[in-house]
Amino acid sequence: MTSEIILFGVGAMGQRIARLASGRGHRIRAAIDMDPAKRGVPLGRLAGLADPLAGPAITSDVEQALRGAPATVLHATASFLRDVAGEIEICLTHGHDVISIAEEMSCPQAASASIATRLEATAKRHDARVMGTGVNPGFAMDILVLALTVPCGRVDHIHATRTNDLSDFGPTVLHSQGVGLTPEGFEKALQAGKVVGHVGFGQSIALIARHLGWSVDSVNETREPIISSVARETPHLRIVPGEVAGCRHCASAHVGGREVLRLEHPQQIRPEAEGQETSDHIRITGDQTIDMRITPEIAGGAGTAAAAVNALAYLGHAPAGLVHLTDLPLTSPRMTTTSPRGAMR
Amino acid sequence: MTSEIILFGVGAMGQRIARLASGRGHRIRAAIDMDPAKRGVPLGRLAGLADPLAGPAITSDVEQALRGAPATVLHATASFLRDVAGEIEICLTHGHDVISIAEEMSCPQAASASIATRLEATAKRHDARVMGTGVNPGFAMDILVLALTVPCGRVDHIHATRTNDLSDFGPTVLHSQGVGLTPEGFEKALQAGKVVGHVGFGQSIALIARHLGWSVDSVNETREPIISSVARETPHLRIVPGEVAGCRHCASAHVGGREVLRLEHPQQIRPEAEGQETSDHIRITGDQTIDMRITPEIAGGAGTAAAAVNALAYLGHAPAGLVHLTDLPLTSPRMTTTSPRGAMR
Repeated sequence: MTSEIILFGVGAMGQRIARLASGRGHRIRAAIDMDPAKRGVPLGRLAGLADPLAGPAITSDVEQALRGAPATVLHATASFLRDVAGEIEICLTHGHDVISIAEEMSCPQAASASIATRLEATAKRHDARVMGTGVNPGFAMDILVLALTVPCGRVDHIHATRTNDLSDFGPTVLHSQGVGLTPEGFEKALQAGKVVGHVGFGQSIALIARHLGWSVDSVNETREPIISSVARETPHLRIVPGEVAGCRHCASAHVGGREVLRLEHPQQIRPEAEGQETSDHIRITGDQTIDMRITPEIAGGAGTAAAAVNALAYLGHAPAGLVHLTDLPLTSPRMTTTSPRGAMR
Repeated sequence: MTSEIILFGVGAMGQRIARLASGRGHRIRAAIDMDPAKRGVPLGRLAGLADPLAGPAITSDVEQALRGAPATVLHATASFLRDVAGEIEICLTHGHDVISIAEEMSCPQAASASIATRLEATAKRHDARVMGTGVNPGFAMDILVLALTVPCGRVDHIHATRTNDLSDFGPTVLHSQGVGLTPEGFEKALQAGKVVGHVGFGQSIALIARHLGWSVDSVNETREPIISSVARETPHLRIVPGEVAGCRHCASAHVGGREVLRLEHPQQIRPEAEGQETSDHIRITGDQTIDMRITPEIAGGAGTAAAAVNALAYLGHAPAGLVHLTDLPLTSPRMTTTSPRGAMR
């Protein structure tokens, strides 16, 4: 079963989504982006589809793009709820379902209860569904954690660590993690809100807590510089020993005064320079201990695009309103045909 | 939210289920077992509950035990569909939901299409739900595999290997894996149907295929002796070099003539005697490679009891009929209270 799609945001992630969705046979009937440089360009050319003339021309006319029968909007513009809520509401108002990769959309209540309530009401009023997904939040530190609790009789503590490599990212991402700063510079940038670390711990904690029935009474977060003891280099920048290679962002959640969840996400360039291998590591302690490791870590970019396109087959079965990944069956890739070649593509 | 439970089968697994369910505050209102030695014994004493006089007396009067308002039957008597279908149908006829740990119940169609159709019809007629769960099948080689496909854009091949230790098991299980035989004796026992290996590959393959949309055209199975090169000993038996330590049972599934899934399950006593560590290992290849390892392996007995009790919170939300784990959200342990102590128990 293929879907009619409207793509909202045709940056690097939107382009990945376009390639994957059209490869699966979904029809992208409109593509929205606010960048004047993209206006009028065929989606096929911009996203590198097999046929460069395939797909609609990119438009910044949102109202026009959203006209027509209900479809599913794949939304990939920004991370924070306050920046995306307006865009998503317009889509819902037109009766379209929305799958967003905005980090805070995987559990918007954790960012703003009032905006979440508004999204839920708007979706219900227009018989539409809205959800967020991605690799993190949305999988590596929440859905995969919850999957591992299925055979647990009792969960006392969860510890998830995602160690990744920022070397492929450009200046914007590197600056948001403080890469290249001195330790003092990192501290100042942190105070000024320029080093943000990971976006999504609040969502992962909320997804886990609501699914396990935990009533979390406090969350602590720390952001520390990862100070390199060796020189490290990427295509974008070079750091010397003593400079910051990245940010170790941690969050812990407490129930009844006791830590029940600890999330650690050291993000840095060239972790292998100091013998760090990248991985997703989850350790659950309770009536049994489950120690899981994925090496190397699940790819963030490719995985987030896949998670969004995979969700197309599931969202339509949910009741109208705000939908959480934890309400759905596992959003595995659903092959659009059962023919042998189709099944393998 | 706690449930009213009828326990069907009070063997080792049924007793585990009783302890876990009553620890979570569920009320076990009847307990059925056909063993005359257990008749009349309080469940509390048999299952080692905190209060030995707690719970109902074990009965073999099925009709009497099933009387009353709709409840959920936790069913733990045997592995094969043909042996459990009758018991489960009686429960459904009384309007009770059923959660079974019979291996073949996690996808009964894979064992018998006609029995599965009958169970589905009986359940629907009586507005009841029936499902199977457990660690394997039900988690380690299917649900966990599917969880790992969530961030995959394309799945070309899945390879899951579960390496476990049979040392704690008694003679019945050890004989079913050929432990202690000579290689020639293993071959004869295999031909005679006395060595069965793992029960549930058909279910795991079917669960994966139906969720990913694969149309499997052939399945191959092999059962080979694991011949020990050292002496190995358990409380129940001792083997010498050259004798069989267990059974390596493998299954592969093909789509369009190509292998897409390989499941390997070497089950043996004392794997550490030859440096084998126990683990669950899943490797997915496609647009990305996901290599996951859990060491040691997920506990089969404790995990299966937990999976069954955890499913209580989810089954009631499914429509009447035959329910598959892949239709439900992740059946994580749902705490029955949000108070701090309750949440942690």
